[in-house]
Amino acid sequence: MNEMDFLAGLRGLPLHPGARGLEDDCAVLELGGEALIINHDMMAEDTHFHRGTDMADVAWKLVALNLSDLASKGAKPVGVLLGHTLGGDDAAFLSGLNEVLAVYDVALLGGDTISSTSASTFALTAIGRATHMPVPSRKGAQIGDALYVTGTLGRAMLGYEGDEQHRDAFNRPTPRLEEGRALAPHVNAMMDVSDGLLLDAWRIAETNEVTIKLDTASVPVADPSRMDDCVRWGDDYELLFAAPANVDLPVEATRIGSVEAATDAPVIFGETPLRSPDSLGYRHS
Amino acid sequence: MNEMDFLAGLRGLPLHPGARGLEDDCAVLELGGEALIINHDMMAEDTHFHRGTDMADVAWKLVALNLSDLASKGAKPVGVLLGHTLGGDDAAFLSGLNEVLAVYDVALLGGDTISSTSASTFALTAIGRATHMPVPSRKGAQIGDALYVTGTLGRAMLGYEGDEQHRDAFNRPTPRLEEGRALAPHVNAMMDVSDGLLLDAWRIAETNEVTIKLDTASVPVADPSRMDDCVRWGDDYELLFAAPANVDLPVEATRIGSVEAATDAPVIFGETPLRSPDSLGYRHS
Repeated sequence: MNEMDFLAGLRGLPLHPGARGLEDDCAVLELGGEALIINHDMMAEDTHFHRGTDMADVAWKLVALNLSDLASKGAKPVGVLLGHTLGGDDAAFLSGLNEVLAVYDVALLGGDTISSTSASTFALTAIGRATHMPVPSRKGAQIGDALYVTGTLGRAMLGYEGDEQHRDAFNRPTPRLEEGRALAPHVNAMMDVSDGLLLDAWRIAETNEVTIKLDTASVPVADPSRMDDCVRWGDDYELLFAAPANVDLPVEATRIGSVEAATDAPVIFGETPLRSPDSLGYRHS
Repeated sequence: MNEMDFLAGLRGLPLHPGARGLEDDCAVLELGGEALIINHDMMAEDTHFHRGTDMADVAWKLVALNLSDLASKGAKPVGVLLGHTLGGDDAAFLSGLNEVLAVYDVALLGGDTISSTSASTFALTAIGRATHMPVPSRKGAQIGDALYVTGTLGRAMLGYEGDEQHRDAFNRPTPRLEEGRALAPHVNAMMDVSDGLLLDAWRIAETNEVTIKLDTASVPVADPSRMDDCVRWGDDYELLFAAPANVDLPVEATRIGSVEAATDAPVIFGETPLRSPDSLGYRHS
């Protein structure tokens, strides 16, 4: 099965209401007047990182990409559970884990350690506490909203390609936790841009049954001569959100488009209507 | 690193108080007057199951072994997050997942789906709600307590070896959820016997700084002619607990020994003092 078919199969199982139909970035578990935000993302050798990658960077990224999902819910991280495959440079992994937990003030809650006969897989479950209710979702964008993104897109791509200036954007991404918490009360919809701007904008459009119109000239990219790559590559972990056009935002973000009534193209990129999600960004298959 | 060294490394990281020093089966997260019980266990192809295993059984077991840890805390399951590697018989996996979630009335909360270039790894995070506070722990056994186990040990081993009568004990183990909830108010210490009776009894002894004396003749095993294998093999997912000797137990369980003041042997099996955990059971390395 490919990922889309498998996800469709999962949606046929008994879902918790907090699963949000498996259409959001995280699960939301309400309990005793609070809401826990829970995310689970994995990284596999050869698929998500090359053999030879510094395992301290792998540990950092594993935690950071999970925290990025919590950021898109405006959550404050509480703790993580680690699923670790032994056999690589485990000491470096521990050192990167120590760094990222310290920097984002997150504690280890538990996990599991296994051996494997081949490529290593690492799993992380991140748990946070909602700081604002209702908890932001991919759903909720209103026609007339402005669309914004934090930071600059394409940095992870350049870092991956070897550009020293952007190396950390790929190896040690920064989850936008403070920005997410500051934005949560102001946004109508929010997600992190893990799979590329075009594909993630497509997802917001589909979920909300609207068309997202992107103003090409406004999109902040690390290399304007490679605009098409920068908006497709992903791994940037910036926040993409829709908010009323007249809101004073509490954090720096760039207005890159608007939420419009649905047309036959979920996303319009400049003058180009995008009618299929194929080749818009990173898709697991 | 081997698992012991890696665990020692993890214990040097910032730990959440709910991690219980990474010395218990689950994490315990207190929130709004309630306690969430959280567990994360993985299964890897070639390490935890053979290629060619029915993936419906793999899905069942992945959920069941995580629920077994919740059972040892007296928790009621709330939901699970699945980390799934695509590429095997994903339809069978979905069908087994559907069955096990329905049987134990657990809902899917979320997760992640990845591709891998080699052996598949599956991760599960199970979340439950404590039904009794304080939440039972491996720690708390008192000198003078009796030691009990539910069910019969060695069934998973026989099932693995091909004995039809015990096949499901290996392929589709039963987490002792109801038993765990009934026992939680009565026990001083509890865990599930995932790695074999001797090794898990050793762990209770070490954590509590006591000696566990096991009465060989009382230990309920599926094949008495293979006692030594039955108490080492693991994968049975029964509950092992210490309780005051005079307590009327609310569930069926066999009294198999007693908690004594520490000697130089953490476990005494019949007349045999066991002074090293080597060769006592299943250890990940």
